[in-house]
Amino acid sequence: MIYFLDLFGVAVFAITGALVAREKQMDLFGVVVIALVTALGGGTLRDMILGNTPVFWVLNPVYIIVVSITALLTVVVTRIYELPRRILSVADAFGLAIFTLIATDLVLNQGLQPIIAVMLGVVSSVAGGMIRDLLSDRIPLILRSELYATASLCGAVVFVVISPIAHDVASVLTVAITLGLRLAAIRWGWTLPAFKMPDT
Amino acid sequence: MIYFLDLFGVAVFAITGALVAREKQMDLFGVVVIALVTALGGGTLRDMILGNTPVFWVLNPVYIIVVSITALLTVVVTRIYELPRRILSVADAFGLAIFTLIATDLVLNQGLQPIIAVMLGVVSSVAGGMIRDLLSDRIPLILRSELYATASLCGAVVFVVISPIAHDVASVLTVAITLGLRLAAIRWGWTLPAFKMPDT
Amino acid sequence: MIYFLDLFGVAVFAITGALVAREKQMDLFGVVVIALVTALGGGTLRDMILGNTPVFWVLNPVYIIVVSITALLTVVVTRIYELPRRILSVADAFGLAIFTLIATDLVLNQGLQPIIAVMLGVVSSVAGGMIRDLLSDRIPLILRSELYATASLCGAVVFVVISPIAHDVASVLTVAITLGLRLAAIRWGWTLPAFKMPDT
Repeated sequence: MIYFLDLFGVAVFAITGALVAREKQMDLFGVVVIALVTALGGGTLRDMILGNTPVFWVLNPVYIIVVSITALLTVVVTRIYELPRRILSVADAFGLAIFTLIATDLVLNQGLQPIIAVMLGVVSSVAGGMIRDLLSDRIPLILRSELYATASLCGAVVFVVISPIAHDVASVLTVAITLGLRLAAIRWGWTLPAFKMPDT
Repeated sequence: MIYFLDLFGVAVFAITGALVAREKQMDLFGVVVIALVTALGGGTLRDMILGNTPVFWVLNPVYIIVVSITALLTVVVTRIYELPRRILSVADAFGLAIFTLIATDLVLNQGLQPIIAVMLGVVSSVAGGMIRDLLSDRIPLILRSELYATASLCGAVVFVVISPIAHDVASVLTVAITLGLRLAAIRWGWTLPAFKMPDT
Repeated sequence: MIYFLDLFGVAVFAITGALVAREKQMDLFGVVVIALVTALGGGTLRDMILGNTPVFWVLNPVYIIVVSITALLTVVVTRIYELPRRILSVADAFGLAIFTLIATDLVLNQGLQPIIAVMLGVVSSVAGGMIRDLLSDRIPLILRSELYATASLCGAVVFVVISPIAHDVASVLTVAITLGLRLAAIRWGWTLPAFKMPDT
């Protein structure tokens, strides 16, 4: 089931990548590349940092196929029918929540410390979007003000605290908290205090 | 012979990196750094993804020496004699073709699946140019419209299909197809269909 | 003692990262992320290239804690008291010198060739700042003209030449030369010759 959740998260991020590529009027190949980077970039960085190499998608090509097909389907579907922005944001929030859970769990299972699990939980779920923004010349994710990575951070912290007691409860809570915070941030524009200079 | 082809590809990419650094009026050190990133970046990422570490240039410093000398020679030569742009584009296309062949072959030799070989063949041959563009603040390669990575993709697909039957024929075909597509794209401005919104 | 030097370098780079994040008016989370990337990015890349995985901060979470606390303290302190720019540049130069020494020494200890030690000495000390600039949408380090990476290069070269004869002397000299060149570059605006086109 974790595996299907993972593929679902990958597909959702592939859609968001393809839509950014559309925004930038890239060609078909660019769409697939940006979808791949967005969906697989975070996990790739995580595996390289941990030394889990070859990285996950080299060992299981299903990921590449799912991303490529999803990206091409996104091209076809959005030519016929414009996806409402709301559904997309919700899907992206699901991806964020799922990736946070999966990465945090994976790192704890390797016997590493909770703080590392939190750090890599966040890295895995946001790095793909960061590389997407760099390659497509957008304002980097981290410079935009809405809660995003912070939602992932809260979910990951909850997981490392509760999973030693009740793994399944922790899993559900992590997804619920990350998803809830992110959706609330979208709905009500929640932000963290910015680091402004005293005189501005 | 593959080794000399590889060094040739590395030198050619080093020249293109040095010329981009010139365009941005970097200092001598910047020229060498951008040349190193362009020529070795793709292979470094490939090796890190596969877990072939230490990566290739750590095990064989000849690569670093070839790139550095090529970059410095480029500085000297272009102060005396302006290289015609046409020669450069052709050289870059050669580099693209050679790197596609070498990486795709390497991944297949490690016993990995054809789809992974294609993916890493493309990654190895285009990632260096992408990092070069990020560091030198240019419009990212992937946002420009001419066929580039797509030429590498076609070459890599041909290699994984034909090399189990006839390895040498496949090698020649891969280089010919990648090179031919890229040169045709430069000559006639070939592009893939862009992903435009219905109403634009 | 090397360990404490290392933590000092990490803390200093964390401060510079936090201040860049301030310049861009990021939120608290962004400040911590940019501080982490700046302070740990270079060493992470070095470890991934060498295959020293899991990378250093996964094996020793003290690094993450030092960076996070330093970044948050920087937020608090600079709200009360504006740090003079001069102190900061000096601290950053110290970080550069320390990282150059530590990485060059580490690579030589692994039995790798001197040229690799120099290359990774420079990569480890400047890559963090490069990724920081990419993520925070600043002009990339390498495009600015003052001596920076070149100071690290000179220090690393001195280390690989002298350390086989006298390790401790080499260590002191490396820090002194890197620091001295960088501070002189700041004070007197030292630059390397730029790679300009003949006609401009």
